[in-house]
Amino acid sequence: MSLSPLLEKLVDSLTCLPGVGRKTAQRMALHLLNRDRQGAAELAQVLNLAIEEIGHCRQCRNFTEDNLCPICNDQRRQSDQLCVVESPMDVLAIEQSGNYRGRYFVLFGHLSPIDGIGPEELCIDQLDQLIGSSGATEVILATNLTVEGEATAHFIAARARHHGANVTRIAHGVPTGGELEYVDGQTLSYALQGRKSY
Amino acid sequence: MSLSPLLEKLVDSLTCLPGVGRKTAQRMALHLLNRDRQGAAELAQVLNLAIEEIGHCRQCRNFTEDNLCPICNDQRRQSDQLCVVESPMDVLAIEQSGNYRGRYFVLFGHLSPIDGIGPEELCIDQLDQLIGSSGATEVILATNLTVEGEATAHFIAARARHHGANVTRIAHGVPTGGELEYVDGQTLSYALQGRKSY
Repeated sequence: MSLSPLLEKLVDSLTCLPGVGRKTAQRMALHLLNRDRQGAAELAQVLNLAIEEIGHCRQCRNFTEDNLCPICNDQRRQSDQLCVVESPMDVLAIEQSGNYRGRYFVLFGHLSPIDGIGPEELCIDQLDQLIGSSGATEVILATNLTVEGEATAHFIAARARHHGANVTRIAHGVPTGGELEYVDGQTLSYALQGRKSY
Repeated sequence: MSLSPLLEKLVDSLTCLPGVGRKTAQRMALHLLNRDRQGAAELAQVLNLAIEEIGHCRQCRNFTEDNLCPICNDQRRQSDQLCVVESPMDVLAIEQSGNYRGRYFVLFGHLSPIDGIGPEELCIDQLDQLIGSSGATEVILATNLTVEGEATAHFIAARARHHGANVTRIAHGVPTGGELEYVDGQTLSYALQGRKSY
């Protein structure tokens, strides 16, 4: 044990960050102490503020410190399209792609009975109400292409159709730059099933 | 801009950590908010405490919240050997190797006139005094094998010899598991120069 107790505690605390192991945490701790104590102080302050203030958007459930998140608050977004995703990272990914101008709903997970995650945990009743009240004509299911993501999509599709909304699922197939030789069989069979006239 | 202002600020603050870019910071922020608010609160608290309390060891200059670091405080360590390193990470690396039982001195950098880092910034006077007062019979130079590290070693060696200490440099050569075929020429020439009878 060559670290002082407090330094050891700092290293320990830093490992709560995802993808940060002990060695990386050591490097982070020493970097902050050595070169960026102001950055560390700011980080501590913002962390406290964030866990205090940030909750869920009343409408789409994404993280925000206000009642409505910036996207739900943006009057220029089309309210006739509603994209359902599993996590806030998915919203960021779609926003970065730059082609979607509708709204979102964030499930914060997928149906997984084995982990005790049912429709209630994903607030699917709230999604239900939103589809009804927002007058969305299209519900885009953008959950992940995993067993759980597919099950979640199926479940939500059934609910959405009750509201007469057009339910769509994002396309699955060969990614940009993907060479057929290296694409897995499952993806290829999706690509073939989903073929379009050319 | 699809993140709320406070969340944006949290992502920004997290990028002060070394090796953390915007994308990783986003993932970290969302992970903390979603799954580990308690970990985040603890991290904030420990960060504040650490930047408030942690300073330099009076003797070896390593980071500690006490007067003396755990190594300098450990009476079982041999005080006749003094190992000079560039950074606290180097102390950790040598400690993990498990074979050194002497003391350390941490320079927190290397001589680099171009960046305005001279003997004063590295507290080489303090090292000088320590060599004199600790009665170290051997000063082990473990600065990095770079131009600056070598220059720093030369500079310290001259000072240490004044005290009549035996000055040594850690060995440079082929690393464990290193195959000659893949070792660079400079390292190989060090390995040849440093050969020992077998």
